[in-house]
Amino acid sequence: MKKNYVPAEEIKRRLQKLRTELDQRGWAAALIVQDVDLLYFSGTMQNALLFVPQTGKEILMVKKYGERAQRESAVEQVLPLNSWNEIPSLIEDHHGGVPRTIGIELDVLPVKEYMRLQKIFSGVAITDSSSMIRAIRKIKSPYETKQMKQAGEIGKIVYAEVPHILKEGMMEIELAGLLLAVAMRHGHQNYLRMRSFNSYAFSWHVLSGFTGGELSFIDAPMGGKGLSPAFPVGASLKPIKAHEPILIDFGICYNGYQIDETRMFCLGKLPQKFKDAYRAARQIETEVAAIARPGISCQELFHRGWEVAEELGYKEYFMGPPGHKTRFIGHGIGLEIDEYPFIAQGHDYPLEEGMTFALEPKMVFPSEGAVGIENTFVVRQHGVEKLTPADEELIEV
Amino acid sequence: MKKNYVPAEEIKRRLQKLRTELDQRGWAAALIVQDVDLLYFSGTMQNALLFVPQTGKEILMVKKYGERAQRESAVEQVLPLNSWNEIPSLIEDHHGGVPRTIGIELDVLPVKEYMRLQKIFSGVAITDSSSMIRAIRKIKSPYETKQMKQAGEIGKIVYAEVPHILKEGMMEIELAGLLLAVAMRHGHQNYLRMRSFNSYAFSWHVLSGFTGGELSFIDAPMGGKGLSPAFPVGASLKPIKAHEPILIDFGICYNGYQIDETRMFCLGKLPQKFKDAYRAARQIETEVAAIARPGISCQELFHRGWEVAEELGYKEYFMGPPGHKTRFIGHGIGLEIDEYPFIAQGHDYPLEEGMTFALEPKMVFPSEGAVGIENTFVVRQHGVEKLTPADEELIEV
Repeated sequence: MKKNYVPAEEIKRRLQKLRTELDQRGWAAALIVQDVDLLYFSGTMQNALLFVPQTGKEILMVKKYGERAQRESAVEQVLPLNSWNEIPSLIEDHHGGVPRTIGIELDVLPVKEYMRLQKIFSGVAITDSSSMIRAIRKIKSPYETKQMKQAGEIGKIVYAEVPHILKEGMMEIELAGLLLAVAMRHGHQNYLRMRSFNSYAFSWHVLSGFTGGELSFIDAPMGGKGLSPAFPVGASLKPIKAHEPILIDFGICYNGYQIDETRMFCLGKLPQKFKDAYRAARQIETEVAAIARPGISCQELFHRGWEVAEELGYKEYFMGPPGHKTRFIGHGIGLEIDEYPFIAQGHDYPLEEGMTFALEPKMVFPSEGAVGIENTFVVRQHGVEKLTPADEELIEV
Repeated sequence: MKKNYVPAEEIKRRLQKLRTELDQRGWAAALIVQDVDLLYFSGTMQNALLFVPQTGKEILMVKKYGERAQRESAVEQVLPLNSWNEIPSLIEDHHGGVPRTIGIELDVLPVKEYMRLQKIFSGVAITDSSSMIRAIRKIKSPYETKQMKQAGEIGKIVYAEVPHILKEGMMEIELAGLLLAVAMRHGHQNYLRMRSFNSYAFSWHVLSGFTGGELSFIDAPMGGKGLSPAFPVGASLKPIKAHEPILIDFGICYNGYQIDETRMFCLGKLPQKFKDAYRAARQIETEVAAIARPGISCQELFHRGWEVAEELGYKEYFMGPPGHKTRFIGHGIGLEIDEYPFIAQGHDYPLEEGMTFALEPKMVFPSEGAVGIENTFVVRQHGVEKLTPADEELIEV
C-alpha cells in the first residue's frame, strides 16, 4: 500500500456498512457525489462519482483524472466518464439496469446539479442520503484515529514553536502565518473542510485581547476581528500586546483528517482574572471528559459542562457573552469539522465507541479577551482518549 | 467610511443594477443566499439573507451577528432573523406582501436548504438567479480593481522574497508555507473562494520538476502532486532540486478580491528547453493581451493563444499534455476565482470594459516539469491593464 492511500480493507468495510444501511432503508443504491464522501468511500478525490448498489459491484466513474483515481482507489471497477449524461447507461451496462431509488447527498449538492441529475435519472426517485452517510462516517476506524493522532502530533510541534516566534507588536495574522508555515512543513494540509452551507473552517484563529470578544457569523463563542468584512473571522492586523490573553485555536489536517485544538499564551504575565478563567475552562474539560464514555447522552455532557461552569461562577462568560452563547460545547470532527456527534442541547443520542469529537470550553470577556482550551478525543470502550498531546499549561513568554 | 468596508455608493450602484435586471426578467425580487453574493450586494458576510425587491427597499435579515452586519453594511433596513421560517412574514411586514417570483442562486444553494425555502415560500415561484448575478458581478468598478491592484502589490512582495527563502532540498510545501507567511503579513486573506461544486482554490501551487507534469481533478494544465489523495493538488513533500523548473502559481486575496499570478524560478541554471518554453509562454501572453479590448470575443482570444503556441512549435505541450488539455487559457476573477468571462473555446461573447481575468499560458512536459506565466488584467477602454506587477523574468537563484 502506498503511503497515505486509504487501505483496501478500509474501503471494503465502509462500502459494506453503506450496503447494510441501504438494505435497511430499502434503497437500491447510493450515488456518492461530494468530494469528501467520495474520498471516504473510494479513497480518491478526483472528479468522479461512485455508484454503490445494494447488491453487486460498485462503479467509480471518473471524469478527471482517471489514472490517478485508479491508482488511489481500492474500488475495482473504475470507468471513464465524459459527461454526466452517460451515468445511467454506464450503470445499465455494468449493473443490468438503473435502480428505482437512489440516495444522493442532498445536504451539499447544489440545486442546479440536482436538476441535471433529475433529468438524467428521469423516473428514478432521488432521496437524501446525507444523514445515512454522516451516521456511517461518525464512527472512526483505528486507521482514521491514527491519522488524527498524527495531526495531533503536528499540533504539538506547532504550539511548542509559539514561544520562539511570538514577539510584542507582531500582528495576529503575522503570528498565524508563521505558525502555518511550521505546520505545513510538517504535513499540515492547510485547507480544512466543513460541510455546512456558507461556512468554512480555517487554521488561523489567533485572537489577542479584545479581538477574543468580537462576535461574528460563526456559531462559536468568539469570532475574532478577521481581516475585513470579506473574511470577518480569525486573526487580524491587530498588534499583539503584553499582558493580554492570546488564544490560539489551530485546526490541523493530516491526510484529510482534522483535529481541533486551543492553547493559551501571553507576552509577560497574564492578569489573574484570565488565569482563573483558564483554570476553570480546563476543569470543565476535565469533568466532562471524565464522564464521557459509550452510552452517555451527548446532551448530558453538554449539561455537565454548563453545571461545572456555573459552579465555578462562570455562567456569564462561558461559551460567549449573554444572548450570544453557542448551542454546543463540542463537535464531532474527522474529514470535516462539523461531523456527528454534537455535544449540544437537544442532541439526546449516545456517545459510541470510535466517535471523535472536539471539546472546547471557552470564556469570553467582551472587549477584554477570551480564554479557553480545546482538545480532540476519541471514544474508547471505557472512556475517552485525547488525540491532541500539546502541553496545556498557559505559556507566558 | 471605515477602512476595508464596501462604500455605500458602491452598494447602491450594485443594487440598482440588480433591480434593472429583475425588471428586465419580470421577476419581483431576488433573495441573496450565498455569502460571497451577500458581501457583494450588502457589504457584509455575516449569517444573513438579503431580500431585494424590484421596487421598494431591500431588507437585510441577520441571524448572526446583527451589530456587525449593521456596522459593515450600507443597507438601511437591517432586521434580526431568528429562523428562516420568519422570512415571509418579515417581507410581508416591511414590503406589503410576498412576491410571486423570487430569484435565488440555485448554482450554489444545496438541495436541502432549497427544499426548506420551497416550504417556507409555498406558492412562490423560485427561479435561478445565478447567471444574472454572475453577469452583474463580472464588470468591476474602480473600487474593485483597486482592491485587486492591492492584491497584485502583495504578490509582488511575495515573489521578490523567493530568492531569499528558496534553498536546495526544501520541500515544495515548506517553500509554500514560508511564502504564505510573507503574504499573510501583508494582508493576504489566505482563504480563496471558488463557486463551482467540489472545487476549491488555494494559494500554495508550488510545483518543481516532475510534479509540474502531474494531472489531477482540477481543470488546469497541471495539478501537482499535493500532499495526499485527500488534497491531491498543489505543493507536495517533494524536495526541490537544482536545475528543475519551479513554477509558483500564487493566488493572492486582499479584502475579498483575488488575483492569480504565476512566476518561474530555478536553483542554478534552468535547462534551455524550459527557458525556451517559458519565453514562448510569455510571448503567447503578450500577443493575446495585445488584441484584448472591449468587443473582441473571448473565444477569439483563446484561438489567438493557440495560434501563437502552434506557430512557436508548442502544440504538444501547451495547456497540458495531449488528451488532457484545458478548455481555457484564462478565466475571470474577482471575489471568486471562477467568474465570467472564460477565455475558452465556445465562449463566444465579447470582452467588456471593467472585466477582470487571469491569462495563463503554460507548457507541460510530462514527468519533467512545467513552465508558464500568469497575470491578471482589467479591460480598459482601448485595451487591457495588468494588475500583477511582479517581475516576470525567470529568476535563477
